[in-house]
This record gives sequence, C-alpha cells and structure tokens, in this order.
Amino acid sequence: MIDIGINGAAGRMGRRLVALASEDEQLRVVTALERDGHELLGNDAGVVASVDAINTPLAAQVQNKPKVMIDFTVPEAFREALRVCRQQKIAMVIGTTGLTDDDYKAIDAAAEDIAILHAPNMSLGVNLLFALVGQVAERLGDDYDIEIVEAHHRFKLDAPSGTAMGLAEAICHATGKQIDKDFVHGRHGESTRKRGEVGMHALRIGDEVGRHSVHFGTLGEEITLAHKASTRDVFARGALRAAAWLADKPVGRYHMKDVLGL
Amino acid sequence: MIDIGINGAAGRMGRRLVALASEDEQLRVVTALERDGHELLGNDAGVVASVDAINTPLAAQVQNKPKVMIDFTVPEAFREALRVCRQQKIAMVIGTTGLTDDDYKAIDAAAEDIAILHAPNMSLGVNLLFALVGQVAERLGDDYDIEIVEAHHRFKLDAPSGTAMGLAEAICHATGKQIDKDFVHGRHGESTRKRGEVGMHALRIGDEVGRHSVHFGTLGEEITLAHKASTRDVFARGALRAAAWLADKPVGRYHMKDVLGL
Amino acid sequence: MIDIGINGAAGRMGRRLVALASEDEQLRVVTALERDGHELLGNDAGVVASVDAINTPLAAQVQNKPKVMIDFTVPEAFREALRVCRQQKIAMVIGTTGLTDDDYKAIDAAAEDIAILHAPNMSLGVNLLFALVGQVAERLGDDYDIEIVEAHHRFKLDAPSGTAMGLAEAICHATGKQIDKDFVHGRHGESTRKRGEVGMHALRIGDEVGRHSVHFGTLGEEITLAHKASTRDVFARGALRAAAWLADKPVGRYHMKDVLGL
Amino acid sequence: MIDIGINGAAGRMGRRLVALASEDEQLRVVTALERDGHELLGNDAGVVASVDAINTPLAAQVQNKPKVMIDFTVPEAFREALRVCRQQKIAMVIGTTGLTDDDYKAIDAAAEDIAILHAPNMSLGVNLLFALVGQVAERLGDDYDIEIVEAHHRFKLDAPSGTAMGLAEAICHATGKQIDKDFVHGRHGESTRKRGEVGMHALRIGDEVGRHSVHFGTLGEEITLAHKASTRDVFARGALRAAAWLADKPVGRYHMKDVLGL
Repeated sequence: MIDIGINGAAGRMGRRLVALASEDEQLRVVTALERDGHELLGNDAGVVASVDAINTPLAAQVQNKPKVMIDFTVPEAFREALRVCRQQKIAMVIGTTGLTDDDYKAIDAAAEDIAILHAPNMSLGVNLLFALVGQVAERLGDDYDIEIVEAHHRFKLDAPSGTAMGLAEAICHATGKQIDKDFVHGRHGESTRKRGEVGMHALRIGDEVGRHSVHFGTLGEEITLAHKASTRDVFARGALRAAAWLADKPVGRYHMKDVLGL
Repeated sequence: MIDIGINGAAGRMGRRLVALASEDEQLRVVTALERDGHELLGNDAGVVASVDAINTPLAAQVQNKPKVMIDFTVPEAFREALRVCRQQKIAMVIGTTGLTDDDYKAIDAAAEDIAILHAPNMSLGVNLLFALVGQVAERLGDDYDIEIVEAHHRFKLDAPSGTAMGLAEAICHATGKQIDKDFVHGRHGESTRKRGEVGMHALRIGDEVGRHSVHFGTLGEEITLAHKASTRDVFARGALRAAAWLADKPVGRYHMKDVLGL
Repeated sequence: MIDIGINGAAGRMGRRLVALASEDEQLRVVTALERDGHELLGNDAGVVASVDAINTPLAAQVQNKPKVMIDFTVPEAFREALRVCRQQKIAMVIGTTGLTDDDYKAIDAAAEDIAILHAPNMSLGVNLLFALVGQVAERLGDDYDIEIVEAHHRFKLDAPSGTAMGLAEAICHATGKQIDKDFVHGRHGESTRKRGEVGMHALRIGDEVGRHSVHFGTLGEEITLAHKASTRDVFARGALRAAAWLADKPVGRYHMKDVLGL
Repeated sequence: MIDIGINGAAGRMGRRLVALASEDEQLRVVTALERDGHELLGNDAGVVASVDAINTPLAAQVQNKPKVMIDFTVPEAFREALRVCRQQKIAMVIGTTGLTDDDYKAIDAAAEDIAILHAPNMSLGVNLLFALVGQVAERLGDDYDIEIVEAHHRFKLDAPSGTAMGLAEAICHATGKQIDKDFVHGRHGESTRKRGEVGMHALRIGDEVGRHSVHFGTLGEEITLAHKASTRDVFARGALRAAAWLADKPVGRYHMKDVLGL
C-alpha cells in the first residue's frame, strides 16, 4: 500500500481523488488537507467524497505523513502545500494550473529536496497529444500555420487553459518558437497573419470538461490533432497513477511522459 | 439579358464574377472596372478571367452603363464605386467586407437614390445560418453561452470576418445584445465568463475558403450551427443571383434574405 | 406537489431521475418500480440513488399511484409499464429507445385512455434541433445531400440511436422522404450516391454520452447542425419537466415540442 | 529536366497534373495518354489543361518515352498503363484507387521490372497521418475504440475511400488487426461494439475534396487525428514530387513515406 495525501480534499477535484483512491487497492489516503477554518474540517474525507468512510478526517495540517501529496487546487493553496511538502520531504504530484513563472521556479527549487511532478494535464490522451504535436510541428515547419483552440466550462478562471499552454510549450520545444513573441490570443482588427505565428483561442461554454485541438494548415490541406475529456475523473486517475509511480523515485523533477512511458 | 458591371474585374473575385457571368444566359458584363493605371487596362475582361473573350475591355471608367454594378473589392475601391453608382443611378450589389460605420451610413444614404444591397456573405447557406442563429439565440436565452468561431486563409486582412460579424448582428438583432458591450475577441489572462457574453475567435490558416460555427452551450448540452464554403464561387454565384434580382427593383436598401426568400 | 413514479428506478437513468426529482420542489417520487426479484427491492429509492432517503422503497408493483410514470428503460420493461399504466390510468412519459412498430402502435392505442408522451430525446437542445433540421431540409431541397452522423458509448445496444431516428423522421416529415427507401446505413463497395439519398452513420466509442450532427452539402458549401450532450442528466431533467407538464393534460398523444413550446 | 508521362491526361486529375507540371522547371510532360477514340486526341495537352501549349498532343500510345508515368485514373485504365509501362520499362507513380487484390499483386510483380510507387493519397499531410495513426493505435491498444470517418464529394464511386483504406492498413500494420475480420462498415440494428472492432463510415456530400478522421475513445477521453484537403492540387503536386523522386531509383516497390522522408 502507498500512503498518499490529498490537498484541497473537500474541493471538486479533491473529492474525486479521494473517491477514486478509495477504489484503488494500491493506494491509501492518510492525509486529507483543507484550509484552516473550512467548515468540513473533522469530517471523514470519504464521506465528504460520497463514498464509504476512510477513517481520515479533513484536517488543516498533515497528521499522518504520506509518501506523496497530490495537489489539484488553486495557485495560493498550491504554494502553501509546496512549502509544507518541501519542509517535510513529501513527494508531490501537482495538477494545479494558472501558475506563475515564480511558481515554476519554486517547483524547480523544491526538486532539489523532493521528487516532484507537475503536469498541466494528467490524462494519457493529452500527454500523447503533447508528444504528437511536437513531432508534427517539427516535421511540417513554418509552411503550415498553427492554430490552437480549446474549450472549457463557463466557470474556468484562467485562459488559455493549462493544457493549451502545455501544447504551446510542446510546439516551442520542437520548433524554437517563443510563447511571448510568436503566439497571439484572439484576433481583432486588421491583422494579417505573420509567418510562423501561432493563434490561440479559448472558448468558455456550458459545462465542457475540456477539449483541445491543434490545427496545422497550408495551401491545400489541414491536419488536426484533438483531444476531448468526457469526465474530470480521467485527470484524477492520471494523478493517482502518477502518485503511485512517484512514491519510490529519488528527488528531482519529473514529467507525465515519464509516468506514461511516452 | 441584364447588363451588369463588375468593379475590380481583374481581382480574384472579379475574375470569377466575369467568368461565371459569361456562363449565365441571363447576364451580360458590359462594364469591367479596374483602378486607373492598372496594368491590364484595355485587355478583354473575359480573357483576363481565363474564359472566352466577352468584348468588354477592362477600363477605369464606366463606358456602357450597366443596370447593376457588383462590388467585391476592398473598402477604398468600394467607396469610389459607390460614389460613381449613386451619381450615375446604377444599382449596386456589395460584397466587400471590412467596411466602417461611415461606410454603412453612406450605403443608407445612397439607398435614397439607387437600389442597393450589401451582404457580408452571398451564399444561400450562410444566409440561412443567419436566420437560424437569430432564431436559436432568441429561443435559448442567456442560460446558453454563445461562442462564434471562424477560420479563413492566411492572407485575409480583417478579423473577425464580415460573415462572423453578420452572425454577431443576427444574435444582437434577436436578443438585444450589443457588439460593443457584449462581445469579446479572444481571451487571455484571468477572465471568468460573464453571463450573456459572446466570445469571437478568428483562426487564420492555410487556404481555408471560409468556415463559421456558432456554439450554444449550457450545463448538459451544446448546440452547434456551422457553415463551410468549399469554393469562393459560391459567393460569386450568390452575387450574380442578387444582381439579377435587384435589376428591376425600386430605390432602397435590400438584403440577401430578400433575394433568397428567407 | 406532483406525484410521479419512476420505472426501472435502480437502473442508471432511473437513479438519476430519482436523485434529480428529490431536488425538485414541485415533484415527489411516490413509486419506484423495479422488476420482480431485483436484489434491491425494499431499499429506499433515494438511498439507492446516492441521495437522501425519500421514504419510497423500490417495489415490483405500483403502491402509491402517481399522476405520471416515467419510463426510461429497455423495450421489454417499457411494455410491462405501458400495460400497467394504461390499466391504472397513469399518464406516461417514455424515453426508452429501440422500440418496434408494434410498440408505437401500442402507444397510440394507449393514448385513447391516458395522456402519453414518447420522445427519443428529452433535451431542449435536441428538440430544437429536430425543428431546425426539418426547416432546413425543406428549404434546401435535394440539391443538398444530407448525411446524419451520431456517436454513443461502446455499450449502446441499438444503432442508429433513437435520437438519430428522430432526426430522420424530422427530415421525412419535412420532405416526404421515406426511411425504408431513402436512407442508407454506412457505405461499402461501389455505390454512387443517389440524388435525395440520406446517409446514416453510427459511431460507438468510449463513454460518449451522445453527439449528433446533420450535414447538408452541395457544390460550394455545407451546413451542419449538431448537438452534443455532456451528461445524461440533461435527458433526466427533460423527462421530469415533461412529467410536470403532462400531469394535468387530458388523454392523448403528446410530443416534447409541446412541452418546450417549440 | 525529367521527362514524365500523364495517363488520362484529359481527365480531371490528368489536366491538373499537366497544368502543374508545366509550372515546374524540373519536369517536362513528353507523353499525354488518353484512351483510343477519345475526342480530344491530337489536341495539345497544355491547351486542354487550360494552360499554355506544351507541344505534347494527347495520344493513345506512348510516343516520346518518359522516365516516369503518372497514373491517376480508374482501375481499367490503370491496368492498361501498367501493362505498357512494365513492357517499356517506364517507372510508375500510381494514385488510382478502387484497385483489387489482383491489381496489388500485379503491382508487386511489376516491381521486379520497374520502379513503382502506389499511394492511396499523395499529400504530405495524409502520409504523416498514416504514420501517426499507426503509432497511436499501437500505443493505446484495445482499451481505446477506433472509428474512422471520411467524407468525399457526391460523385465518388468507391467507399470507403482509398485513403480511409490506407488508414485502416496503418492500424492493421501497427496492431495486427485484420481488415476482413475486425472492421465494420456502418452499423444498423442491435449490434453491441466488440472489443477491438474498428468502425468505418463513408459520407458522400456536395463537392467535398476529402476529409478523414480517426477517433480513439475510451472511458473518459477521445483523441482525434484528422486531415482535410481543400484542393485536389495537393494530390497532384504530391504525385509530381513522387515522380521527380522516383526517376532515378532502381527497380522495386516504393512508398510515399520514402519520398517524404517520414
């Protein structure tokens, strides 16, 4: 059995992580964190997640130290969890999006003390897409215009999505493009397309779980690589798989493609 | 036979208008305008359009007065044509996009002297889409988020496309929304969706002739109404059909839905 | 309060109907039917549905007579429910698909004794799509080829889906086409498209809740009208809305468009 | 300069091959074949293709022997061209679809005497798609359902398209699936999806040049790889590129991926 912790265990993703972990024979949730003053502190995390009790109450501090903490929250909660995990030498799987450059530096720094994996998206499908998009962008070159379109539910805070930024990074890594210079977010007014430009478009609609497409078009043809998630469980499952994988790894920075063998 | 004129007759759309008109037993191109100093002035407009000669040379001035002038050019060339047509009492079919508010006022003013029809898109399919989109927006209301996505070839100057703006207007007309207040062009940064907001997204890619989709999404479902053109001829054919229809109409402002009986 | 019954209340759709009805102040589930011998008979239907107890146990017979019974099951269970409801004069809302011609005749016959509504799909979006598809098919005529594509999860038994058949019926109703004569299901071999033919295509993939698209294409353009459901709850909510609407209606056959005011 | 021949030079693809070759400084069309009795025999192939004369008349027999013959015709015309090329030791690039197993055997046999390349689709994008689809099918395995959807214009004779069959072959090659056993063409009636099954769907609509998508779906997510051609010239250009590449190759069977370095 691998002991894991869930940060934000009463939140939407936190509850699904607790619920799905409780179905997994390999995993045991020994810590379920919520912010100080949360109204559900003290309640059993399993019950809060609408499954059977797991004998782990929601708490504001780590009580039983887990091997790996999973953080799928918001930037502020992530920062506190990172501080605690680095201090207590708990490995981390991070799925929180909307992080800043400083946050990424803090992750790199923490990787000197703990095993740490950050992924904008934990699904096998999306990580396969990251790999394919890089490969295709490199092969086709700037004769093919690239446009990235993503859609998420109306409540999403950040735009573009973390996964769309992951796609952008895969393109940059493969081609030498730079997110600051070569990417445009929407178009309005008289603006001819520049050669090598990448367009990004963030739709916010209904309760869309998440769809992403990358379009490569030239005179005569267009290739599209796309992914859609039908349930957030696909991300929670990926995070649990990553936690199980990370539990026995040495300190350092890891990526989802390492977990998935891509 | 209906005598028509083509403005910008050596341009991409102009050539197709000449070529398709030459196949139409009902239409005769008696004037083929190009700007003063154009290198092809004096050449037969049919030959320039890669069809048989039509005995009408490219010229900088109207020589044989047509009943209807078709203008599918750029804003500057349109303005000159409007001036000439109003002065000479020639009806006009206008497909030029990227026009300003002043241009629209000038069209309204001209409608006191001539029959005039402006349409951002002349195809039956797109005009049907305009009608459907209005109908659906009205029926569904603000519980359904609206997002408009369009894609055009890499050379297109204006964004969003004239057709996308036509879709926006159809939505505004049906719901009371306002383009200045309720529409966003792309999203970047922390920006939760506002209730009633409409997102617009302009892809520029390869040699895409033109595709448009309007998405209506709420918790649980999404409806999409979409159109794609596979050849610009569909717009040229619509313009010729509009010209034939407009030839015997009294002065006034007309719309493509009048031509198509929608 | 309107008293309703749920047939197949321990099934996947049945549980959601019970759960969503328990959140609705207007509705009370007074009967929760399951087949004789079902292992959960006697358990509270709310608890089985993972919500609070509703004090209505799963039972094999109607105990508290509801005003309306909702049946979202399989053809065999539907037939038994129809027999019971007609006998006991309970109105019915039926969402079961895969019904035979004989079943439709039985529904028509029952409409002489009870108010009865059958709909292949209860969502507002899909019923709006039915209306639009008929309207477009009529306006465009046989110059536009029609193709229907649907996708559902890998476990679905019938193909095409009931909703796709509903789209087909909307086209037939508007154009005079006939499902037996004018529709083809997939294509294989040398088979030129016949004018007026409608193609149907049933994808079965992953856990897709349900997506449908109708394509109208001619030389130069294609119009697409599409719908996707992101959760089965959208159908359950529609059924509950239909039940509330039907509760005070006289005997007769009703349609979802009556409920939705389309 | 490389001397090439075009079989079916007065046909739709033949004319484009002649026209595009005439713009290519590296290529010279020295033979333009048409069937015995064709009404345009004797006319200049360039003029027939709506470009400048190329001093090569349409003829029923090879007069100036080319290094490579391009055949983009129908199975019967292909067979005659194969016989002639093998006899006269002319290399061949073949884009004709709808071939039989016997035709494929005849190509293999001819590869003992001439350099020969057959490809169901000559575009860079589609051949890249072939490679990606194989790679993804292998990585994801049978937990992911596969569905192939293609759409072509209403006049197309064979279904599924040659390109769709190429996608099917890429999947078979990567996974060990067999086209005869594991593929279904459309679905109708009660037919649960079998694990490992691949669905194929052929839409025929308007003047669609060709679009193909391969969908991989499991519980929670779906990946789609897609291609669309906007003009048949993309295939003609690929064939000319293949001909230039094949001109100096030894006898043997070649594939488009060899030409494109995939």
